[in-house]
Amino acid sequence: MLDNQSFLKSAVEIITIGDEILIGQIIDTNSPWMSQELNKIGLKVRFITTVADKEQEILDAISMASKRVGIILITGGLGPTKDDITKHTLCKYFNTSLKFDETSFLNVQRLFHARGREVTEINRKQADVPEICTPLLNELGTAPGMLFRKDDRVYVSMPGVPYEMKGIMRNHVIPVLKSSFALPPVLHRTILTQGIGESFLSDLIAPWEDHLPPHIKLAYLPSAGILRLRLTASGFAEEILRKDMTDQLSGLEKLAGEFIFGQESDTLEKLIGDLLRDKKLTLATAESCTGGYIAHRITSVPGSSDYYIGSVVAYDNEIKTSCLGIDPKTLEQHGAVSEQVVVAMAQGIRKQFKADYAIATSGIAGPSGATPDKPLGTVWIAIAGPDSIFSKKYLLGTQRFNVIQSACLNSFHELLKILKGR
Amino acid sequence: MLDNQSFLKSAVEIITIGDEILIGQIIDTNSPWMSQELNKIGLKVRFITTVADKEQEILDAISMASKRVGIILITGGLGPTKDDITKHTLCKYFNTSLKFDETSFLNVQRLFHARGREVTEINRKQADVPEICTPLLNELGTAPGMLFRKDDRVYVSMPGVPYEMKGIMRNHVIPVLKSSFALPPVLHRTILTQGIGESFLSDLIAPWEDHLPPHIKLAYLPSAGILRLRLTASGFAEEILRKDMTDQLSGLEKLAGEFIFGQESDTLEKLIGDLLRDKKLTLATAESCTGGYIAHRITSVPGSSDYYIGSVVAYDNEIKTSCLGIDPKTLEQHGAVSEQVVVAMAQGIRKQFKADYAIATSGIAGPSGATPDKPLGTVWIAIAGPDSIFSKKYLLGTQRFNVIQSACLNSFHELLKILKGR
Repeated sequence: MLDNQSFLKSAVEIITIGDEILIGQIIDTNSPWMSQELNKIGLKVRFITTVADKEQEILDAISMASKRVGIILITGGLGPTKDDITKHTLCKYFNTSLKFDETSFLNVQRLFHARGREVTEINRKQADVPEICTPLLNELGTAPGMLFRKDDRVYVSMPGVPYEMKGIMRNHVIPVLKSSFALPPVLHRTILTQGIGESFLSDLIAPWEDHLPPHIKLAYLPSAGILRLRLTASGFAEEILRKDMTDQLSGLEKLAGEFIFGQESDTLEKLIGDLLRDKKLTLATAESCTGGYIAHRITSVPGSSDYYIGSVVAYDNEIKTSCLGIDPKTLEQHGAVSEQVVVAMAQGIRKQFKADYAIATSGIAGPSGATPDKPLGTVWIAIAGPDSIFSKKYLLGTQRFNVIQSACLNSFHELLKILKGR
Repeated sequence: MLDNQSFLKSAVEIITIGDEILIGQIIDTNSPWMSQELNKIGLKVRFITTVADKEQEILDAISMASKRVGIILITGGLGPTKDDITKHTLCKYFNTSLKFDETSFLNVQRLFHARGREVTEINRKQADVPEICTPLLNELGTAPGMLFRKDDRVYVSMPGVPYEMKGIMRNHVIPVLKSSFALPPVLHRTILTQGIGESFLSDLIAPWEDHLPPHIKLAYLPSAGILRLRLTASGFAEEILRKDMTDQLSGLEKLAGEFIFGQESDTLEKLIGDLLRDKKLTLATAESCTGGYIAHRITSVPGSSDYYIGSVVAYDNEIKTSCLGIDPKTLEQHGAVSEQVVVAMAQGIRKQFKADYAIATSGIAGPSGATPDKPLGTVWIAIAGPDSIFSKKYLLGTQRFNVIQSACLNSFHELLKILKGR
């Protein structure tokens, strides 16, 4: 019998089943995603356990989890092949047997017919679910999710395919958990900053951070050249949380406004693209050290052909003269990594591609090419517009890809500020 | 007292400590890397457990692990800040206390002096280690690794910073485990393929795979447009394994040679770059649907300026005529996504940039732009050389980034074959 005294009713354990994770073949990205989604509704993941596709180990893991938490979310081990034994193990754990579920079978049929194929016997078996469970419709795959309730605990088993798991979590698990537990309101806001390191931002906003009320927590989430600030408010009615959050955000804006470019899942390239499209403006780029990365980021946005003309990647200096019209004397006198050259590159590509705006970069991404007065990571960025030219020198570290990425993000942020000011 | 009967002496459990993983803030990439490295020396990870920076939970996790495995590798929770309580918890678990370790302190001093800074009190404490442990030098960081031996088990604690953990694993943990356990020889070979899906490759090599001897195992490891085949041989003397592996690789080569481009950690852009440099040849690119991604991948290789001239990203059709010299009639008659246009792009950029070879792409990356006879994912690739022109149409799926990435990798693979044939 389980000890009902010591387990944490609204705490979560994630159990990940799969040999492919234990041999390092795939990285478990499901658990972080689930943790974030659960956080948003005020639930905390306390343990993550990964075990092999082995009956005894799965049984032990579920049994251990139910001794310490009230919500047990299991992913993996629900495919049609013989390696996947989770479903049978769940029957054993809950002392039940499989039964055919008509709704799950209709879903399998629907998916097979959409691909013009007949349902095979092995896939028909995917509609068998443990008798005592509530099947959860998997709209994107053939293995249904399964929900069990026992001894005041909730157990959910989901397939390990990330988009299938996410669909089941969003459509079924999150709503069930929300309604099963009296979860206090929790409010999250993510603020996106660029162009400032974590320690510098921390110093800059210290006067604000030090006076945050105790019911609003701040987390720094660095990722790929962007620093996200996540504010989490809880402990009061939603209305109060909303008001307090708005007040705090305006305080943050006052101190760090110049580094804030967006919220939640915004990207710089998307924000720039939307502004260019709205204002019926076009953009071109001339890249040296960034080597096409800026063009790649801009064209990663669907519909970017509405405003993006194209790029010249002038890796060889001769292209800077032949294709961008830069005077060879300017190159010789100042070197490729100079304000004069990067400004001429931006003006040259803007004219040649008949664009409203143009970004140009020239720098030393390394590992070689540095000189005493132009150290590794030196990058000049220029942005030419109809009636303005911006240019600035940056020092962006010593790792090749970081230099390229930072140069790209800095150029985007400067362009965004210029477009907003228009 | 521990039950020494049931634990698996040479099985591994990884314990990951950190709140930041449980809230989904960071993805645990340490465990997959460790699993792979352990696999290479013949050790298997049986469990991965993630717990919070909480004493009791860490104690429980270590205690649980030591009931089932003989090798317990702990990462995280060794930084200088107060959140990191692992070291004190280990003292409690092993019933010992901290003592100052001179060698670890010299390492802290060395790292601070290299950055021109004095050692702070908080960092001095990083040289305190549990009395009964063997400190493991962390060349890349201030927190030493720690190795404990107790009741026939090995326990290692390492910092969670990936490059620090990797250094300690490579320099200390792997050698210790190799010498502590009589591990049978294990041989790994990774073969890299491009341009064929998993199920098609599986069908193609079935006659070979079905006759693999039982002591050689095959795993398919798909990742980012490249399909890796990992062969693992074990169970015999190393000499025999080497011979058998060589035989099997030549059998694989016979069936799938045209899709194999390299081994181990090769990349297509690096292999192309090395060949171009060796043969003193140059490369230029003209990109439409790939939008600068090809240029970015080529220039991600340090030293690529030795052979790479540059690119024109001709996103707008006008650039295709003005900059690449394509006859507007060709564009009008055949459309931008056509053999005629992509060939003209490759020839145009090759001439204009005075390169020996040129890659060109034109296609529909989506989500919009498809027509009944040019469905989403249609990409034309051309490669122009001194005395040859290659062109081919591909169908590369419906996800924008996958189309771009596959087009890039296919163009690289074709160029590699052309360069090898020279």
